[in-house]
Amino acid sequence: MSDIPEVVAVDMGGTLLRVGVVTADRTIAQHWVHKIEGRRGAAPIGALLQSALREASGWMSAHARYPAGVGIGVPGVVEPEDGLVHYSANLDLHNVPLAALAREIIPAPVAVENDVRAAAWGEYQWGAGKGTRYMIYLSAGTGIAAAVIDDGRPYRGISGAAGELGHSPVFPHGERCSCGNVGCLETVASGWGIVHRAAQSGMLRVGAGPGRSSEAALTVEAVFQAAATGDRTAAAVIDDAGVYLGQAAVSLVRLLNPQKLILGGGLFFAGSPLVAAVTAAVGGVSLSGAMPPSVSLAAFGSNSGLMGAACLLLAPESAARPRELS
Amino acid sequence: MSDIPEVVAVDMGGTLLRVGVVTADRTIAQHWVHKIEGRRGAAPIGALLQSALREASGWMSAHARYPAGVGIGVPGVVEPEDGLVHYSANLDLHNVPLAALAREIIPAPVAVENDVRAAAWGEYQWGAGKGTRYMIYLSAGTGIAAAVIDDGRPYRGISGAAGELGHSPVFPHGERCSCGNVGCLETVASGWGIVHRAAQSGMLRVGAGPGRSSEAALTVEAVFQAAATGDRTAAAVIDDAGVYLGQAAVSLVRLLNPQKLILGGGLFFAGSPLVAAVTAAVGGVSLSGAMPPSVSLAAFGSNSGLMGAACLLLAPESAARPRELS
Repeated sequence: MSDIPEVVAVDMGGTLLRVGVVTADRTIAQHWVHKIEGRRGAAPIGALLQSALREASGWMSAHARYPAGVGIGVPGVVEPEDGLVHYSANLDLHNVPLAALAREIIPAPVAVENDVRAAAWGEYQWGAGKGTRYMIYLSAGTGIAAAVIDDGRPYRGISGAAGELGHSPVFPHGERCSCGNVGCLETVASGWGIVHRAAQSGMLRVGAGPGRSSEAALTVEAVFQAAATGDRTAAAVIDDAGVYLGQAAVSLVRLLNPQKLILGGGLFFAGSPLVAAVTAAVGGVSLSGAMPPSVSLAAFGSNSGLMGAACLLLAPESAARPRELS
Repeated sequence: MSDIPEVVAVDMGGTLLRVGVVTADRTIAQHWVHKIEGRRGAAPIGALLQSALREASGWMSAHARYPAGVGIGVPGVVEPEDGLVHYSANLDLHNVPLAALAREIIPAPVAVENDVRAAAWGEYQWGAGKGTRYMIYLSAGTGIAAAVIDDGRPYRGISGAAGELGHSPVFPHGERCSCGNVGCLETVASGWGIVHRAAQSGMLRVGAGPGRSSEAALTVEAVFQAAATGDRTAAAVIDDAGVYLGQAAVSLVRLLNPQKLILGGGLFFAGSPLVAAVTAAVGGVSLSGAMPPSVSLAAFGSNSGLMGAACLLLAPESAARPRELS
């Protein structure tokens, strides 16, 4: 049994639900990965969450460990104070009391936050943003989002819906986006946008059926690999993604004047050309009267969401010192 | 003599320096307008500020009024704590101790802030943003900038340089901007961008000399007027400005989830088509899980900067109630 506080952290993505036992000394003592795919709506997602928490709780009991709380990151609009998920498009959740569901399994404090804002908070407290006051976490994966730290506090917006960078309009008459609008940043620079554009350009239809299935068979990793090995179509798609991610990053920097820009999400870890494009774009702008921010990859990589969810409790916004919780 | 606190407010623009005696009951008791044109650099600007403050101070003395302080809005990067202007491109200021210069004339508390952030603060405390917690002030005039209120606090950024919305890149291979970069929002949607594009399209060369002077003779008001009376070139330029201002506003709303978007600056007051374009763009987006903000014009119109500068002292960030200052 450890005398360092530890929590159960949950990172609910669009396809995976990751669970970890995270200690205040920043280690993941144990972790589990569950597939979400197929499950949508309050009942299936709630059941999956509860069974995952039961598993983590059982493991902790067996090792004479006791959770100081549960931290949950959710892709959607969250009311942190009452642990309610107002809305999640990916998981089809509407006003689901996620904190209450979690407390049924682990009777301890439960913190719920938007997944990208949680990841940003973890990087700010423990990772690549440590020691800064103004920081932006730019997440590019299947979708694109940004979370802002304003003088040490997470920026939320009036209904907690801040961060929808992926749905910034960048083309007045562009492609239809998943959100229903046209010309959003995601149509060219997200994981799904890259795959969609590569498929539209006729890439990698070989081995796949006609029509939509060709797109379904294509992965963003395959597009990156093709670009790296000289496929011009793939390279052009990746180049475009880099140009528009770079533009978005420069806009964020000019609007919000951060000390640090942290790149997280699968797309940056899969695609070094995109890291290079964003770094060059941000480094190349002239900023009147301001230093450009340093740009770095998320310190916790694909665990940023998990560490962030843990930080909601282990290094909360309100606490002067993380160790005060025990 | 009034027993309501009053301050000398200064709004330093690119072309005009406005000074007002503003009382805590939100009235402008007296005001003066000085032309800045031609003056650039610490010595000329400092001298103009001091002579303007001497005039205001003299008027107050003559009316048995006493300034409780001086509030100054400056187009540039400001350190509010020590009243230093780090940088102003428009006024060619570098590390000028504006608060100290003001105190030489009026020995009272002096608050210095970026002009757009000051205007936003005034609208937040006294004007169209009253009662909100998350608010964006979008200013479009000669240039374009935005100021953000985050849960009742002005967002500043690490070096106080936040707000440079006008230099968001919107065209990967666009026109050269005044800032040295290419394709900035200002090249199409600012006062100077509108005039420049109208001139480039050959508009209103009649009556002006050849070359640059044709552009110099053209005003943004003339472009609006021509568009309103059926000039297709002018109408297309204004339409484009509206499209890109609308995109920028939608991006701000998605990223920052404000309760209210307030439109200020000469361009919105001169050009109702731009107000309509932004309002329609923001009202027309689907926002997952969030209400779109209401959009309204700055309550104080062209006095937003002056009222904001006054608010720096009369309704400061730190005060629970504006009237506590006296």
